[in-house]
Amino acid sequence: MTHTGLAAELLKAAGATVGDTICIQRDGEKHTGVLMPRHEFSDEAIITLKLPSGYNIGVRIAKGSQVSLVSKKEVKTVARKKMPHDQGRKDVAVISTGGTIASYVDYRTGAVHPAKSAEELVFSVPELMDLCNIRAKVLYSILSENMTVSHWQGLARAIGEELNSGAVGVIVPHGTDTMGFTSAALSFMLKNLTGPVVCVGSQRSSDRPSSDATMNLLAATRLCVDTDLGEVVVVMHGEPSDTFCLAHRGTKVRKMHSSRRDAFASVNIPPIARVEGPDVKFVGPHLRRSEGPVEVRDKIDGRVSLLYFYPGFEEEHFDLIASHVKGVVIAGTGLGHVSEPIMSSIRKAVKRGVHVVVTTQCLYGAVNLNVYSTGRDMVAAGALPVGDMLPETAYVKLMWAMGQTDDYSEVNKLMLTNIAGELTDRREL
Amino acid sequence: MTHTGLAAELLKAAGATVGDTICIQRDGEKHTGVLMPRHEFSDEAIITLKLPSGYNIGVRIAKGSQVSLVSKKEVKTVARKKMPHDQGRKDVAVISTGGTIASYVDYRTGAVHPAKSAEELVFSVPELMDLCNIRAKVLYSILSENMTVSHWQGLARAIGEELNSGAVGVIVPHGTDTMGFTSAALSFMLKNLTGPVVCVGSQRSSDRPSSDATMNLLAATRLCVDTDLGEVVVVMHGEPSDTFCLAHRGTKVRKMHSSRRDAFASVNIPPIARVEGPDVKFVGPHLRRSEGPVEVRDKIDGRVSLLYFYPGFEEEHFDLIASHVKGVVIAGTGLGHVSEPIMSSIRKAVKRGVHVVVTTQCLYGAVNLNVYSTGRDMVAAGALPVGDMLPETAYVKLMWAMGQTDDYSEVNKLMLTNIAGELTDRREL
Repeated sequence: MTHTGLAAELLKAAGATVGDTICIQRDGEKHTGVLMPRHEFSDEAIITLKLPSGYNIGVRIAKGSQVSLVSKKEVKTVARKKMPHDQGRKDVAVISTGGTIASYVDYRTGAVHPAKSAEELVFSVPELMDLCNIRAKVLYSILSENMTVSHWQGLARAIGEELNSGAVGVIVPHGTDTMGFTSAALSFMLKNLTGPVVCVGSQRSSDRPSSDATMNLLAATRLCVDTDLGEVVVVMHGEPSDTFCLAHRGTKVRKMHSSRRDAFASVNIPPIARVEGPDVKFVGPHLRRSEGPVEVRDKIDGRVSLLYFYPGFEEEHFDLIASHVKGVVIAGTGLGHVSEPIMSSIRKAVKRGVHVVVTTQCLYGAVNLNVYSTGRDMVAAGALPVGDMLPETAYVKLMWAMGQTDDYSEVNKLMLTNIAGELTDRREL
Repeated sequence: MTHTGLAAELLKAAGATVGDTICIQRDGEKHTGVLMPRHEFSDEAIITLKLPSGYNIGVRIAKGSQVSLVSKKEVKTVARKKMPHDQGRKDVAVISTGGTIASYVDYRTGAVHPAKSAEELVFSVPELMDLCNIRAKVLYSILSENMTVSHWQGLARAIGEELNSGAVGVIVPHGTDTMGFTSAALSFMLKNLTGPVVCVGSQRSSDRPSSDATMNLLAATRLCVDTDLGEVVVVMHGEPSDTFCLAHRGTKVRKMHSSRRDAFASVNIPPIARVEGPDVKFVGPHLRRSEGPVEVRDKIDGRVSLLYFYPGFEEEHFDLIASHVKGVVIAGTGLGHVSEPIMSSIRKAVKRGVHVVVTTQCLYGAVNLNVYSTGRDMVAAGALPVGDMLPETAYVKLMWAMGQTDDYSEVNKLMLTNIAGELTDRREL
């Protein structure tokens, strides 16, 4: 959007347009940075500046505020297409899938666009190039609610190629909505990681004063360049303000808030690492880089449904869904329970060779089908409880396990085997 | 279970059986209380005592521990059948539905049973009778995963009767698995409450050293007797140890842990009250008792399904379910999103007169379908976003709203009207 009201007047008087470096003086304070377009949700009295550090701030102007032009924007259209390569620096791959984090501001028009080329993506956070050589690729440009199983597979293959050709780590900019599903899928599909695979998102687009994109990307880069991590993780803000980021294990992370910048939480385990500025501190145990090569086990059988149980959930609902798939993950209540009428539906499904895996909709804590009669009946009917695995992770894992083998009991065995930290040892709980 | 090993030897030597008051001496410490049966999950070296305060503790015995008999159990089978009535005390109704909290220890056999009569229920926590006159009733004796819509209706009617005949509050012992659904249902069905309706559960049965049943029931009683609260709430432990309980608003509470004693959390608002011993402190705004009479609006149309969206969720899944119901509550990703292929399923369902209500599976935060194109498409297809309402609460409310009116737009209007604190004002978020 274009600026209006007092902001428009001040900017016009200064001869400043979006992309120029300007200085705003207000109440004795001075703020210098690149003028950003006005965000549709911003107050008309807010001018957003991108500071030299890469962070955006919103400056509220009032009568008496002064705006002066520091320098006109440099339009280096051709130069921007070439990415620098420094022999002394490590190579980090950036494979973008889309989402808020992969949008960039076009300073000519002021509009926010999804990055369609690697250059658009990387030049929106040029600070990354101070830390490493970036090999950037726009694999997809989709909102994460539109990710499907085949996108996960393509992504896993692309990551494997990058790591097996010398990248010390891979950063995956991703929409936050389903980032936890993707990180779980990558965790199962990628074996012998020679470096971290860091899924990273942002909750505020890069044209907003409070954008978390830059800080999250920088933290992701630190993990790739400065640590021995060899796991799939999700990196996002650790609290609402811009103090530190957290790295969460790919199989134990969930989006737990629709809008906060610290929306992601590790469930049932502590986060793996805390990244504050250039400092990375491991706070939980982590898997180290392997010698490689990275193995991509990308076979997935998508015929699985995830069902949340609730009072009034009818057996016909279960039967209808179970008759269309080869696996059902139940998010039961409490320790993993469903109502009595569902028992016979489970029994019928299991008899037909459908996997019925049980998790808890509480999200926190583990299932235990040995405490109450309901649970014992469920096990007798053939349901498989999977400890403290998140419902979403169990859903992804069951598809992956069914892709690895056609043998019913082998699939169940895989579900109970800790492949990528998805099951917490009881003693740790 | 019976005691074994050293515990059995010491108890035998002391001539003590379950129900007797005994004293255990160990390492200079002395513990006196009623001998409880051994719980099947307890170590054989643990003896559980019920202290005079009502709390259970587990004492680990070792060589050198001493057990002495203080007094034999009093078997007052007949006397126990009569509940005292003190004119100077207020009447509190206890309407039990079942669950762990409604189980009691039979000191003759040592077994744990569901309470089948009001007396069995109340005499398992005789401390309640020091605070009020108890009118107890066992309405159901079921595990809460087996609660259905018609159970909610029967419960609402029974509560209305008690409040309209002089009880100052109603305590509803309930299994914890679906207690949040029941509390939401009661919140919508009961209007003009003349006193609190307190759903209360426990995560450890009353024969276990760590049982939370007594403390939760006492806190519930305090709310009924000592406060002006006129809302449906859930009362459970506020932290894992026995320090304080929290009262959560019935429409904003969710079981967030499968096994911890502080499993319940208020989502998107602070809890209503903190109860520590006899002290009740309101920590958030609350509704005061009305003059009455209590109105029971118990019409519910059960033809609603709750669907969690995930990557790989197929439109056929949505279509199959939507064709069997009159309302669908979607727990979308992030701000409430679903994938593109689901749009046309939503459009088709809405055209047929099916309500499609949108919540977020993040649980925390509100939906907002105005930020991204996905959301705008969902609204254009006829989906109704319902702010920060929990998916479970929206599911219950949609059934209730459809029970109140047959008019499509009136139902939608009801969904957006704050009936029982289920919608947080945006400014409070």
